[in-house]
Amino acid sequence: MAKRALDVRQAHRLLSPGPVTLLSSQYHGQPNLMAVAWAAPVSLDPPLVGVAIQPTRLTHEFVAKSDQFALNVPHIELLAAVHRCGLVSGRDGDKFEATGLTPALAAEIDPPLVEECLGHLECGVVERVRLGDHDFFIGQVLALAAEEEAFDDAWKADEEGGRTLHHLGANLYASLAKGYRA
Amino acid sequence: MAKRALDVRQAHRLLSPGPVTLLSSQYHGQPNLMAVAWAAPVSLDPPLVGVAIQPTRLTHEFVAKSDQFALNVPHIELLAAVHRCGLVSGRDGDKFEATGLTPALAAEIDPPLVEECLGHLECGVVERVRLGDHDFFIGQVLALAAEEEAFDDAWKADEEGGRTLHHLGANLYASLAKGYRA
Repeated sequence: MAKRALDVRQAHRLLSPGPVTLLSSQYHGQPNLMAVAWAAPVSLDPPLVGVAIQPTRLTHEFVAKSDQFALNVPHIELLAAVHRCGLVSGRDGDKFEATGLTPALAAEIDPPLVEECLGHLECGVVERVRLGDHDFFIGQVLALAAEEEAFDDAWKADEEGGRTLHHLGANLYASLAKGYRA
Repeated sequence: MAKRALDVRQAHRLLSPGPVTLLSSQYHGQPNLMAVAWAAPVSLDPPLVGVAIQPTRLTHEFVAKSDQFALNVPHIELLAAVHRCGLVSGRDGDKFEATGLTPALAAEIDPPLVEECLGHLECGVVERVRLGDHDFFIGQVLALAAEEEAFDDAWKADEEGGRTLHHLGANLYASLAKGYRA
């Protein structure tokens, strides 16, 4: 797989079809991962994305204290690892080790990226808003990259189908089928 | 199609896989529609969803003035109508008429629902946050319904594939392929 750096203004294209993401964070050198389906682009210029996180989560503590996180867009083949990240807490051990996923150096932030993922949004927190029982963290996208075979201005969903993973609920997921042109 | 009313606490399940939605609004008896891919659940209890809307949009004016909107989840067969809603402005005419979509009475709010859609989240605005070049409207889900053949605690993605529509970018969309159980 060859990753290509992208203009940060394309960040919304990585999230637009609604894939589940792996949020990577780090505090005092300890990395953590969380499966996130509650994320969306919220601004084009500056490029901002929002992520809802429950205050009880270790990820909440890490993101609140470090003001940095990455959203990593997993390939459907990472289904088992993604689901495991949603079930266990980083308080019980390193989730990179637990899942076998590989930490990779980010360009602009301290938390590691998830090497096996198709795309990465590196974010610096610019705002936090309490909304009901979650905090909504707003991240400005500082660096963006995607696997060039899977993303070309948009995620590809060709004859072989798309490669992103979508969370239906509980332990149910789906991939994208072939694309349509309106 | 038979729609079933659902517990509003299931609202996040309608948005979790990231489908494009049709936002319906109404002001002074004039309805409007907008295609929205930038939406996400943000709280379980109370059930809140957030939607990013550019201030230049007629939908922005209608939602800001009426404090109500519905998110309607379209079937993939509505692709052409959804795309058209994203291209034209309600200032140029009634989008229900332009697309041939049918307005239906909502249970808890004034704006009409889109009859042909698979599911509906009826929302009352509880907060608005300026984030970059968009306003993020937070809606509390007041009523929820979905087509019972397409949704059973989660959108179905069976052997025939899923039925929701996902926006890749520009005029490119995809449906969900078969589901996976983790």
